[in-house]
Amino acid sequence: MTGKPTLAVVGATGAVGVVMLQILSQRADIWGEIRLIASPRSAGRKLAVRGEEIEVVALSEDAFDGVDIALFDVPDEVAAQWAPIAVARGAVVVDNSAAFRLDPEVPLVVPEVNPHAVRTRPRGIVANPNCTTLTMIVALGALHAEFGLRELVVSSYQAVSGAGRAGVDTLRAQLSLVAGTELGTKPGDVRRAVGEDTGPFPDPVALNVVPWAGSLRQDGWSSEEMKVRDESRKILGLPQLPVAVTCVRVPVITTHSLTVHARFQGEVTVDGAREILATAPGVVLCDDPAAGEFPTPADVVGTDPTWVGRLRRALDDPTALELFVCGDNLRKGAALNTAQIAELVAADFC
Amino acid sequence: MTGKPTLAVVGATGAVGVVMLQILSQRADIWGEIRLIASPRSAGRKLAVRGEEIEVVALSEDAFDGVDIALFDVPDEVAAQWAPIAVARGAVVVDNSAAFRLDPEVPLVVPEVNPHAVRTRPRGIVANPNCTTLTMIVALGALHAEFGLRELVVSSYQAVSGAGRAGVDTLRAQLSLVAGTELGTKPGDVRRAVGEDTGPFPDPVALNVVPWAGSLRQDGWSSEEMKVRDESRKILGLPQLPVAVTCVRVPVITTHSLTVHARFQGEVTVDGAREILATAPGVVLCDDPAAGEFPTPADVVGTDPTWVGRLRRALDDPTALELFVCGDNLRKGAALNTAQIAELVAADFC
Repeated sequence: MTGKPTLAVVGATGAVGVVMLQILSQRADIWGEIRLIASPRSAGRKLAVRGEEIEVVALSEDAFDGVDIALFDVPDEVAAQWAPIAVARGAVVVDNSAAFRLDPEVPLVVPEVNPHAVRTRPRGIVANPNCTTLTMIVALGALHAEFGLRELVVSSYQAVSGAGRAGVDTLRAQLSLVAGTELGTKPGDVRRAVGEDTGPFPDPVALNVVPWAGSLRQDGWSSEEMKVRDESRKILGLPQLPVAVTCVRVPVITTHSLTVHARFQGEVTVDGAREILATAPGVVLCDDPAAGEFPTPADVVGTDPTWVGRLRRALDDPTALELFVCGDNLRKGAALNTAQIAELVAADFC
Repeated sequence: MTGKPTLAVVGATGAVGVVMLQILSQRADIWGEIRLIASPRSAGRKLAVRGEEIEVVALSEDAFDGVDIALFDVPDEVAAQWAPIAVARGAVVVDNSAAFRLDPEVPLVVPEVNPHAVRTRPRGIVANPNCTTLTMIVALGALHAEFGLRELVVSSYQAVSGAGRAGVDTLRAQLSLVAGTELGTKPGDVRRAVGEDTGPFPDPVALNVVPWAGSLRQDGWSSEEMKVRDESRKILGLPQLPVAVTCVRVPVITTHSLTVHARFQGEVTVDGAREILATAPGVVLCDDPAAGEFPTPADVVGTDPTWVGRLRRALDDPTALELFVCGDNLRKGAALNTAQIAELVAADFC
């Protein structure tokens, strides 16, 4: 192949798609044509990327003609149907749905952790992990490379934009109803104020936390919790890693946070872990509680790295570390990692 | 002693004190006189308890004359000074500060877990645990009695009223500033909108989560995290129990939530755990994710029990359970447990 590769963004008008266009406009411009593809009802809209307005075209087989790499951010069932079509038309697909993540013939890639996996893609598809997995996996990958991971216990504090625009609209509408009131002190008072329609969430999310994300899987686990376990194992190449996860939605617009209790093969020290995290690509260590420094979503949102703070060694287990990590779920958690994978694939083209 | 015991409430005008007066008005009326004590600047105010208005008296040595039991909800240093004075004047003190909780001569009591501990009080003081410990300890005490606890990994989702009225006022003021805006999508935009004064929290708490509660202890641990570890060990009578905790503040007015990864001596089953929790005093099992049922602060606030949901056995460890627990931090987390301890003490008087 000669010249710059042609890139397609499928789902260009969604919450992640919009961030993808910003990211493509900010990163080194390695692309020839950038084609924007969305559902027929969005076709004809014009969106800005790299400083120029591009008209969105409707998803169709022909839309992939001449495309070298296609980034998909669409629902699972749309990806399952259309990714193989794009591949058949000659594109490599980088897919951000759950449709292919656990397929043994599809690599699940985080460029800072397992970049070489991108080269073995017998189906022509590379999968992008779930946003919650991505919040912690760059930091954990660096620590695993040094210490050897043995177990994870994870709790999430997930932003509403993980549920798309509907999630953001729901929280904003609920906040307008509860701000300036005395609500939040009597059973059900917030629920009555926000009404029956709680959007994509099973309960009110303003002035509340909701211990649920995704759909119901076996034995009471949520799909989101299973994704964090299954995807972390695959990315780290540790298929037997014990992973216990509880996912909780919190009233934050964008940026997921996680508490992580990570046990390693042998003794670890905070100084040793600091040294690794301070130099790990894609990680910012923000950890000086004496100075009031730890990451929070309000400061992390809109940035690219994984932010790590509250680093401590477990008091009762010299092989375990405690971490609090934050990452923008629309950037590294979705669009940025997808773009990074596409750049890895493109490097092979050139 | 004959007749009904005289009760004093010290700190009657604080956030917990106000809830205490509600609780004393709701529970079986075993008390003779109820005397309200507060700082001199609150003296003379009238507050309702058991349907009658009572004038607040200023804290002084004489204020404890004739008092059988004194409930303290005041800062640590005030409790450290005044509890021994109340004892010297003949009262048994039930103290909700951290001043005496780890004193080996002061029992730390949760009536559903270790009621008999209340009887051995060589200093005349009984301590009430921290609100975060109390959020989980009733449910864990019941499970421990059956299965034998071996390890805890805990993450908190703590309400702002844990930081008193200033915490509530801070969140309400910040919510009024961010509601109806597009804030929460750019680094620092919430921080700029709410201004420099973040009240009792180190960072904005609206549209944010803050991984910090309390003051700095050794090796990066917060005082709140140390309390959960130390107090859980003492209440359960397991001085060597490994406990790893990360405490995080969330934008909820009242009701703390915790995720708990609890390892036991041997294999556990969800059915076995359900059976215990369904009949444990002070616990409500609210766990039917297929029906969208799990506890959230919005529904739990204002209620007395510990609510338990999301009960699962760890997929990779048949000895571990995952739980999501919620409890009103001002009721069971503070005033209610204090009142229950006072009732236990009073039962010995009569």
